[in-house]
Amino acid sequence: MKVMRAVNTKQCAPIIYALLQLIIFYAGLNAVKGVWPLPHALTSSVEQYPLNPQTFAFDYGKHSATQQGCSLLDAAFRRYFSLIFPDYTAGRWTEEFLKSSKIYCSVGFPDNLSVSAGQASLNAATVWGILRGLETFSQLVYQDDLGSYFVNETFIEDFPRFQFRGVLLDTSRHYLPVHAILKTLDAMSYSKFNVFHWHIVDDPSFPYQSRSFPELSKKGAFHPATHVYTQSDVRRVISYARMRGIRVLPEFDSPGHTGSWGKGQSDLLTPCYKGGAPSGTFVTSVFPDSYIHLGGDEVDFSCWRSNPHVRAFMQKMGFGGDFPKLEAFYIENIVNITSANNKTSIVWQDVFDYHERVGAHQDFTVLVEVWKHGCYLCKVRQVTKAGLRVILASPWYLDLPGPTHNWARYYTVWPLAFPGSEKQKRLVIGGEVCMWGEYVDATNLFPKLWPRASAAAERLWSDEKQTSSVEKAFPRLEDFRCKLLRRGIQAGPLNVGHCKHEYQGV
Amino acid sequence: MKVMRAVNTKQCAPIIYALLQLIIFYAGLNAVKGVWPLPHALTSSVEQYPLNPQTFAFDYGKHSATQQGCSLLDAAFRRYFSLIFPDYTAGRWTEEFLKSSKIYCSVGFPDNLSVSAGQASLNAATVWGILRGLETFSQLVYQDDLGSYFVNETFIEDFPRFQFRGVLLDTSRHYLPVHAILKTLDAMSYSKFNVFHWHIVDDPSFPYQSRSFPELSKKGAFHPATHVYTQSDVRRVISYARMRGIRVLPEFDSPGHTGSWGKGQSDLLTPCYKGGAPSGTFVTSVFPDSYIHLGGDEVDFSCWRSNPHVRAFMQKMGFGGDFPKLEAFYIENIVNITSANNKTSIVWQDVFDYHERVGAHQDFTVLVEVWKHGCYLCKVRQVTKAGLRVILASPWYLDLPGPTHNWARYYTVWPLAFPGSEKQKRLVIGGEVCMWGEYVDATNLFPKLWPRASAAAERLWSDEKQTSSVEKAFPRLEDFRCKLLRRGIQAGPLNVGHCKHEYQGV
Repeated sequence: MKVMRAVNTKQCAPIIYALLQLIIFYAGLNAVKGVWPLPHALTSSVEQYPLNPQTFAFDYGKHSATQQGCSLLDAAFRRYFSLIFPDYTAGRWTEEFLKSSKIYCSVGFPDNLSVSAGQASLNAATVWGILRGLETFSQLVYQDDLGSYFVNETFIEDFPRFQFRGVLLDTSRHYLPVHAILKTLDAMSYSKFNVFHWHIVDDPSFPYQSRSFPELSKKGAFHPATHVYTQSDVRRVISYARMRGIRVLPEFDSPGHTGSWGKGQSDLLTPCYKGGAPSGTFVTSVFPDSYIHLGGDEVDFSCWRSNPHVRAFMQKMGFGGDFPKLEAFYIENIVNITSANNKTSIVWQDVFDYHERVGAHQDFTVLVEVWKHGCYLCKVRQVTKAGLRVILASPWYLDLPGPTHNWARYYTVWPLAFPGSEKQKRLVIGGEVCMWGEYVDATNLFPKLWPRASAAAERLWSDEKQTSSVEKAFPRLEDFRCKLLRRGIQAGPLNVGHCKHEYQGV
Repeated sequence: MKVMRAVNTKQCAPIIYALLQLIIFYAGLNAVKGVWPLPHALTSSVEQYPLNPQTFAFDYGKHSATQQGCSLLDAAFRRYFSLIFPDYTAGRWTEEFLKSSKIYCSVGFPDNLSVSAGQASLNAATVWGILRGLETFSQLVYQDDLGSYFVNETFIEDFPRFQFRGVLLDTSRHYLPVHAILKTLDAMSYSKFNVFHWHIVDDPSFPYQSRSFPELSKKGAFHPATHVYTQSDVRRVISYARMRGIRVLPEFDSPGHTGSWGKGQSDLLTPCYKGGAPSGTFVTSVFPDSYIHLGGDEVDFSCWRSNPHVRAFMQKMGFGGDFPKLEAFYIENIVNITSANNKTSIVWQDVFDYHERVGAHQDFTVLVEVWKHGCYLCKVRQVTKAGLRVILASPWYLDLPGPTHNWARYYTVWPLAFPGSEKQKRLVIGGEVCMWGEYVDATNLFPKLWPRASAAAERLWSDEKQTSSVEKAFPRLEDFRCKLLRRGIQAGPLNVGHCKHEYQGV
């Protein structure tokens, strides 16, 4: 291994890349299969090139800012080799392939299209862009009936529409084994999601094994040994996610959803809550991401009202009986703590609503996640008008009852269809699929999440005008769902039909 | 192996059995854990007996009508040994255990309670009753925190409320791999279901590989090699089901759902249908069960009307333009063919409705499956009034949209709550859970089916008065769902919570 060259551009920058003229052996009539989510610009021809797993290799472009030894891309090359050639077990990376068919990947070429004769190349501004491009490339490769691999002549320009494309998992209402989380991260990368919002604790259980407060999981987890995430589990999840271009956004939801916290730290939650803000610092060292989700939703004011200590504190602070004011005070304290730790705070829309009532968010730089139903775009408009950034979740609550097979309801969402200035629209930085855990655990997580989350993924990645038709999207999503099955993701069926390689895991 | 003694009493006779006074080592305070479906009479004490897998064994009672060598029970003993002691791998069956703790199983003791001091015994009229009793016994055994096995002093009398307790799988809208069918049969036996209604072919695909008409699957299956059931697959399913006390009820739905048939036999379904009744004989030799499901639902008369041959045939028969008459003629022909093959026919309620209109079912001995929604008990009343037997399916269409997690809607079903005579009530012979395949394949079959089907299973097995409360049933069903997980059945969660042994299969 060569010396690793650090590439830490965290921003999910636009990427542009081109795949052209692999060594030409064969000209067929097969059209390029679908790519999900749809790239910004894709042109392809019927020119069909065979790919031989024994001679194919990924390599770095000569002028790439990163070269062999960049562990993130080296690992991605190995991973995508296996994904592209699922029947071929001996993925190799040796000098003997120097003269074989290669795809050259180059970092440091923003908005620069690279095309060379007789080979394929993938250029992007950052390593994260290369990861997205590898995913796209892998989806272009297909097998004929005899098992041979092909890719068609293709040219693609691509970049994401929104920078924040998240999936929320809830590990408090049901514990999800670490391997289920890792597999979810795999599937997320296939749909180009880039944020894993880990709703790690909530009322029902506290599975996070804290170093500073071990009693929290010892007493608050469903089981203190088998139903917890150790420090090493959390590190593994964060590292696995990073390798796939996914940031981990931890949420320690307070003050409304802390039912399980009091089991281990009885001084945190006496009936019902004593007003002392639990410090955010104990997570900072574990979760290195620059964002943290503070929750702040569904606070039960009647609970606070019942507590004489809370009422006394409010008198002292001059809040009178204004509980939203108390909530605002609490959240501002937490936000200050997280700011001091160089974190940007994300909160549920409830926090915005409380602050709106008490007129307190002039110098309040949180990101607001809009989750309530009804006219959610009205709320998006309101929050952006206040100059705050928005993440949209309302239309993507996958756990809600209804015609659950109807993927189209997650596809026909128009996040910017509200009256507002260009500046307001730019404040909508993305969206998030929420898989709440009341009725979800490892038995049904995958068929509930996939490919329905992929419908949202295309909305968040692709150009809206090109992806407004459910009818046009359907065959491409069906094809993508078969690709997920082929990669071992237990994605549910969209309608009557079949895949060449069905799920075999029961 | 000793000479096998054939026991072929197919009737699911009432069983009575007792479990009492296993060698007493320990008296604890643990109550007997729940049994699902609830037995007719269960009394238990806090007296707790350890079970040691190294000394425990099943054996035949001295006076049992079947003895060692009865392959069905020998296999069941081995199976339940593993189910009862999931942590213990070396299940043994040797003479060295002659003096160990045993449960004596005796066939040929109808309505006879057998209790012996210092040991457990299980008596039933038939081997099928022993199978059900083994399931009950296996659910009584539990582990403490150290992994030791226990069973409490218990006395049980049990028999099913309805004789027909079915689960329908649809292998036409999506192909289900054979191992998924076998695992479903396992899970069915855990809930004491006894009929597997195999909706094997339908419009979308014809996966049944017929010996007489190989073209049917060659052209009608999703894939002629990977998405078919061979003769040997079908034999395996039937044999696996029989070993678990489950009959296989094949359905070749005609004339309404034969869209895939015409792909392989073009003379069967020219636009739209020529009126010749396809012979039922080609399935008789493969499916040995004495019942066959003929389908007969959702016939598109406009399709027949469009065909000049059909219209000419109707003129010749004197039916005029009365298409229900033609349908009745068709079904009667098929019923006659199946009767000649010593089969009893089951049909969907549509057939009854057509015959009702043409007044033709005086000497028509089909079983009618009621499936339509709305007032399904009105239909049950009407069919039983006509003297025909009924299988109820309407309330147990698990694929219908809605609050899909709501198991209680499948539990609060009262199949006999219609005004009618005692004789009419007796004509309701059971019910069936229908898992149609539009949005179901191997990726999501199990969490969709279990434990929701188990809710219906208790309704079909247990005394209604004792099982009318959803609140009382809930903790027992939660416990049963954890048992299913422990046995490798991917049963979905009922609500927030956890199991000691979660599903590990992702």
